[in-house]
Amino acid sequence: MTTRRLLIGIGGGSGSGKTTLARRIQEAAGDAVVAIVEVDAYYADFSHLQQRDRERLNFDHPDAIDWELLLEHLDTLCDGHGIEQPVYDFSSHSRADEVVALEPAPVVVVEGIHAFSNPDLRERLNLRIFVDTGSDIRFIRRLRRDLLSRDRSIDSVVEQYIETVRPMYNDYIGPSRRHADIILPEGNCNELGVDLLLEALVSRIERHVHGD
Amino acid sequence: MTTRRLLIGIGGGSGSGKTTLARRIQEAAGDAVVAIVEVDAYYADFSHLQQRDRERLNFDHPDAIDWELLLEHLDTLCDGHGIEQPVYDFSSHSRADEVVALEPAPVVVVEGIHAFSNPDLRERLNLRIFVDTGSDIRFIRRLRRDLLSRDRSIDSVVEQYIETVRPMYNDYIGPSRRHADIILPEGNCNELGVDLLLEALVSRIERHVHGD
Repeated sequence: MTTRRLLIGIGGGSGSGKTTLARRIQEAAGDAVVAIVEVDAYYADFSHLQQRDRERLNFDHPDAIDWELLLEHLDTLCDGHGIEQPVYDFSSHSRADEVVALEPAPVVVVEGIHAFSNPDLRERLNLRIFVDTGSDIRFIRRLRRDLLSRDRSIDSVVEQYIETVRPMYNDYIGPSRRHADIILPEGNCNELGVDLLLEALVSRIERHVHGD
Repeated sequence: MTTRRLLIGIGGGSGSGKTTLARRIQEAAGDAVVAIVEVDAYYADFSHLQQRDRERLNFDHPDAIDWELLLEHLDTLCDGHGIEQPVYDFSSHSRADEVVALEPAPVVVVEGIHAFSNPDLRERLNLRIFVDTGSDIRFIRRLRRDLLSRDRSIDSVVEQYIETVRPMYNDYIGPSRRHADIILPEGNCNELGVDLLLEALVSRIERHVHGD
């Protein structure tokens, strides 16, 4: 087994199907082979701010991410050591006390809306996949998810979408598509594309793990 | 060997890198395994029109293609028989007297700006790849090709681009991207994406040829 790590980035808007694709890569190649790092776990800790100021923060802007810690953790994983991944408490906009232990693996998949926003992260990625799903479908998925699991009102979901999600997609996430090596249209609804991509990635991962 | 054929479509604008991708698939999988059908060979014969009227035709519109003959030839290839592919004479806008004999192969790659424009062709395709290259790069490639090999003036290349190539891209070819299973950004300049795609396709083709 080679010690060089294979780092695969998955970018795309919120609700595009990034997480599903990352999990399907992990299932197809094996849990022991693929570790998933979610950029979302690395929101900066804003516990030094007043609660009122925390609620005004734009969590769809790349500056909301603690890039230094994320990059340090990726380098640690790539050096073959485990990390203690932070857990974010979205109600208080600060880090929770608990952490999640993540074992190193020969392949690391980094997924998040800002997977391609930071040049230092981008340069570390060996392969960049952008999941390009229509804005209407992305909104509908967010709406369903937030109504079902986060106990929110339609008005608050729409307001957040219009105030931050949509403008940040248009300013940062959509344009980051130009850094992609391959584009998967319509994420979860595209079985033929997902199958082809999984086929390529599993073959690439197997060659990597066996040191070819 | 299975008798069912695998039909792969490659769409995208003129100068996007479709032909190069088709040839690389053929090289990677083997000449005997992959036949390439260029939609461009199937321009309709306009020999019944006056030369002046022929010159007014819009060869970037999907109606300029003889779909009936193209579909008949694809079905013949898929049934395991050879075809006599027409050769188009672009100066007279009619079919040349010669034909090109094309042997059947277990995998047929159909490439052309209108690979996804016709619903009957689209439905026959088992996999649809769109090569999505920036409009500036596509224009520059056309300019170079036409200046070098077709002895044209810059003015005439620009005029044709503005009059037909660009509007037809915007009306038909660009929107046909929504039918793609996978999108290859920036065609020829994207080695990582091309390598990943070739890896997936060769694996898919080998499974198909060996009847898995």
